[in-house]
Amino acid sequence: MTAPETLEGWFALHDFRRLDRNAWGRLDATEREKALAEATDLLGSFHQVEDAAAGRSTSYTVIGHKADLLLFHLRPDMGQLQALERAFDQTMLAMCTTRPYSYLSVIEISRHGAPEGTAGNVEDSPYMQSRLYPEIPDHSRYLCFYPMNKKREGADNWYSLEASERGELMRAHGRTGRRYAGKVSQIVTGSIGLDDWEWGVTLFADDPIQFKKLIYEMRFDEVSARFAEFGPFYVGRRLQAEDLRGWLGG
Amino acid sequence: MTAPETLEGWFALHDFRRLDRNAWGRLDATEREKALAEATDLLGSFHQVEDAAAGRSTSYTVIGHKADLLLFHLRPDMGQLQALERAFDQTMLAMCTTRPYSYLSVIEISRHGAPEGTAGNVEDSPYMQSRLYPEIPDHSRYLCFYPMNKKREGADNWYSLEASERGELMRAHGRTGRRYAGKVSQIVTGSIGLDDWEWGVTLFADDPIQFKKLIYEMRFDEVSARFAEFGPFYVGRRLQAEDLRGWLGG
Amino acid sequence: MTAPETLEGWFALHDFRRLDRNAWGRLDATEREKALAEATDLLGSFHQVEDAAAGRSTSYTVIGHKADLLLFHLRPDMGQLQALERAFDQTMLAMCTTRPYSYLSVIEISRHGAPEGTAGNVEDSPYMQSRLYPEIPDHSRYLCFYPMNKKREGADNWYSLEASERGELMRAHGRTGRRYAGKVSQIVTGSIGLDDWEWGVTLFADDPIQFKKLIYEMRFDEVSARFAEFGPFYVGRRLQAEDLRGWLGG
Amino acid sequence: MTAPETLEGWFALHDFRRLDRNAWGRLDATEREKALAEATDLLGSFHQVEDAAAGRSTSYTVIGHKADLLLFHLRPDMGQLQALERAFDQTMLAMCTTRPYSYLSVIEISRHGAPEGTAGNVEDSPYMQSRLYPEIPDHSRYLCFYPMNKKREGADNWYSLEASERGELMRAHGRTGRRYAGKVSQIVTGSIGLDDWEWGVTLFADDPIQFKKLIYEMRFDEVSARFAEFGPFYVGRRLQAEDLRGWLGG
Amino acid sequence: MTAPETLEGWFALHDFRRLDRNAWGRLDATEREKALAEATDLLGSFHQVEDAAAGRSTSYTVIGHKADLLLFHLRPDMGQLQALERAFDQTMLAMCTTRPYSYLSVIEISRHGAPEGTAGNVEDSPYMQSRLYPEIPDHSRYLCFYPMNKKREGADNWYSLEASERGELMRAHGRTGRRYAGKVSQIVTGSIGLDDWEWGVTLFADDPIQFKKLIYEMRFDEVSARFAEFGPFYVGRRLQAEDLRGWLGG
Repeated sequence: MTAPETLEGWFALHDFRRLDRNAWGRLDATEREKALAEATDLLGSFHQVEDAAAGRSTSYTVIGHKADLLLFHLRPDMGQLQALERAFDQTMLAMCTTRPYSYLSVIEISRHGAPEGTAGNVEDSPYMQSRLYPEIPDHSRYLCFYPMNKKREGADNWYSLEASERGELMRAHGRTGRRYAGKVSQIVTGSIGLDDWEWGVTLFADDPIQFKKLIYEMRFDEVSARFAEFGPFYVGRRLQAEDLRGWLGG
Repeated sequence: MTAPETLEGWFALHDFRRLDRNAWGRLDATEREKALAEATDLLGSFHQVEDAAAGRSTSYTVIGHKADLLLFHLRPDMGQLQALERAFDQTMLAMCTTRPYSYLSVIEISRHGAPEGTAGNVEDSPYMQSRLYPEIPDHSRYLCFYPMNKKREGADNWYSLEASERGELMRAHGRTGRRYAGKVSQIVTGSIGLDDWEWGVTLFADDPIQFKKLIYEMRFDEVSARFAEFGPFYVGRRLQAEDLRGWLGG
Repeated sequence: MTAPETLEGWFALHDFRRLDRNAWGRLDATEREKALAEATDLLGSFHQVEDAAAGRSTSYTVIGHKADLLLFHLRPDMGQLQALERAFDQTMLAMCTTRPYSYLSVIEISRHGAPEGTAGNVEDSPYMQSRLYPEIPDHSRYLCFYPMNKKREGADNWYSLEASERGELMRAHGRTGRRYAGKVSQIVTGSIGLDDWEWGVTLFADDPIQFKKLIYEMRFDEVSARFAEFGPFYVGRRLQAEDLRGWLGG
Repeated sequence: MTAPETLEGWFALHDFRRLDRNAWGRLDATEREKALAEATDLLGSFHQVEDAAAGRSTSYTVIGHKADLLLFHLRPDMGQLQALERAFDQTMLAMCTTRPYSYLSVIEISRHGAPEGTAGNVEDSPYMQSRLYPEIPDHSRYLCFYPMNKKREGADNWYSLEASERGELMRAHGRTGRRYAGKVSQIVTGSIGLDDWEWGVTLFADDPIQFKKLIYEMRFDEVSARFAEFGPFYVGRRLQAEDLRGWLGG
Repeated sequence: MTAPETLEGWFALHDFRRLDRNAWGRLDATEREKALAEATDLLGSFHQVEDAAAGRSTSYTVIGHKADLLLFHLRPDMGQLQALERAFDQTMLAMCTTRPYSYLSVIEISRHGAPEGTAGNVEDSPYMQSRLYPEIPDHSRYLCFYPMNKKREGADNWYSLEASERGELMRAHGRTGRRYAGKVSQIVTGSIGLDDWEWGVTLFADDPIQFKKLIYEMRFDEVSARFAEFGPFYVGRRLQAEDLRGWLGG
């Protein structure tokens, strides 16, 4: 079978951290103020993308035991992502965290993902540019991230389908997604050869119930019902640099 | 296939904690009294739902090695759940715990779950209201929690069934459940897009043998036999705030 | 399909502990003597079932890295099991242990397990009473514990079989087991709704080679060959309270 | 199906240890000398089988992150294996190790494994005696250990085959093995009812490339291709007691 | 089925390390300088292959939470690989690391991998020699490593295919790979009998997007679509000994 042609945009790093509250609590008041100022400054500079000519960074507090913080970075060069994780690692706050998970991927669009009827040099269209180098919607308080594979099991083998069948299934899937326009926006990243699953999906919404509604509805699409394998799901709430103090408990 | 329409009620957080008895033992008598008073007050305020206009919170001691405590919260807003985990995290008792598991979900009812013959604006019916915003039965000493998926394997693919077949299978399942009315009550929560399994099931009973009898009987329903995948099971015993001292052994 | 009717006896807790020899070694000689006396007394009282009107408790040293100690308890009430784990948790010895595993279940007998030809009110028969509330054979130096499921995969779905077929398969399995009468005795516990597998199997033998011979022979029974899924296996050696000192190495 | 008759020889314990180099480094020079002398003496006595009337013990340094040391013991009685792990546990060196893995099994030979044409009381033949109570070849610098199952999946169910078919497949497998005579020797141990997999395979060779060549060639045998499930693989290099000092770095 | 004949070159060790930044931070300035000098010297000597008559060693900083450092070694003798891990283990830097993963394998070429039309004594050809004892391209800033199996599931059983069919599928796969000549170079290592997967694949590229493009395209080859099972993926960036100081943060 012929692989679909893909276009790639920014590299992505989802950098999850777990706070060791005992370690944080062992800092004395002066150290804690210093650590807080240092981390607030660094998150602020991440969010301003001061390290690079282009890209986006946003941060989230994660709900549940799987992680406490998510630092989400989009940059043109993979080396910049590594510099960003190292910059955080060298803060006093990072010394009070462990890394339960991370995900390395790159924004990917295939022709499957192009609007029906699109043809020609799609890469240069404003639509494609806005998806390869996306904004992160400011009004979206919640993020949902999960990695996924396409199945290769017996008769349910995505990679053995004809290209036309794959295209049709993806277009139907896209139509489900577009019913959530204005409620949920998404960034799809490819991670074959970069991390342990084939794709990452990052969703943004103001109302987290929309994550469930969208993904539940999509699960009945044949492409999900027959071919999707899902990894862990992470839900976070947008964290502004200046809210770090409140989140750390004063 | 068309996804079933669902109604959503309160968000749910199952917040499991493991007690580090060595850390607790290292506190001196004064600290321990302070920590105990602080945690007793906080659990009491959780159980009174003093943080919100609506919701429920109950606590449990968990049997076996998987966890020691379960703080179970239902709230209208996901942000409140995060505030509740953070409030507990900032107690001295929490500093003596780790988090082996948690589960984020939202109370979900589909038309599958509506009594046979129900039609029209079911959401507003007292029956539906009582399920979307449920009481936790006071006489139920025991809780059982487990997450689950519906299978998508070869011929046993729940999401490829016709809606009518799914409905019929769920109604038969419901009839099994209703034979346990008065013995076991349940809260079903949806977690697609929120956590790693598709649903959470929380059961309440005064006699824990009923958990086994109900779930064993249900396993022979076609919907379970062919389509259910089960995650870990947790069994806990209701803990009133004032019994924390006894449980901590002092 | 109709679920088989089951009878339930005592609840069971398999409480596995791993000894942290460094922590134990850090106790000074006086503390160690005190800890040893305290633990010896407690194990002794467990084995005498001094906490309850009925039940059994025996202890084992586990071979290999999976655990060091197994405290095995049978009691009429689940709350008593929780009290037993808490009583051990509060010893100084327990402060030098972690909990790598545990298993919560309840002694279960189905009509599958009744001798062929049994009918009527089987529960009250001395045979059934001795299985619902069993002795643990004193001459059995070794224990083997493992949890298991019945498969639900494609054509090999236990829960979709006719009751008569399930019954026949279980009876054939029982015949294999009875060939080991006098060599191996067993307690089967149900754990659907209580723990992560559907059943626990606890075997007792004086010669551990018989565990292998029995289970290997059973694996060729159709009920195991087609339908059994096995969890981890634990093998332990009976530990009398007064042998704790020797085992702890001083 | 009828289970094959098996003969059992010595019990086997593969006792893997990971060295905590920080803990070892925290010992002062005098303690380290004492710990080294103690461990050297104990390994020496293991290798001389001074604890028992019969058996074998050899030690290995393991390559890669999975473990650092393997203490491999063969003894007539399972209780002796437990005494051996306890004896090591009580050394100062053991206090600087953790136990990432272990395997409990018993040397097993089935008629599948007997040379073609063998009949009658095979147990007493010198050939069978040498396999039930084997030498560990002195010139074999390398060991390879892995546990394995026979599959029970759909049409590929080992335990549903006719005995004659199983026998034929095993004999063909044996022929592949015999092509490596003089290059690789092996001990097969059964672990049904003793540990988490059904068998353990322990190979010995002077040239580790032969492990790969033998197992790769065997994988094309139908018995492996269709029916084998493999656990983790461990490769170690023979360690004489007197080389412990060098291995520990001085 | 007949196993393909393989040729073996150097043994390979992928030695992954995670830095404990707290432990590193606890060293005082003098110790840290000493540790840095020691590690820089050792990496330098690795890269110069000063320990052996032949081989290659390169080092990488790994992106994401899975590891921080990768020390990649190729040597003629497995004992040399063990000496290399031990040499690193004895540095002060290593005392500040843990080992989250490693992989032991050996460079392997089968006739599947030989250029079409190759015959005769392929081992001695310059082409084969350059693949059995390969250079690591200096201009490749990025490395990608992953282990993999060939499936043995139902109808998708690689080891049950005819040799001619396997050969054809591998040749088609090779043609996909050759379209990336100049962009990606690869070393394939066999690990049956040496580690937990059957093969390791190590790719080198200057532009990491090429890893994704190559492996994505290959996934549509029948040999991957039907027969490949993939383990974890690691991506690293070439680290010169003299850049260790910068990476450790000064």
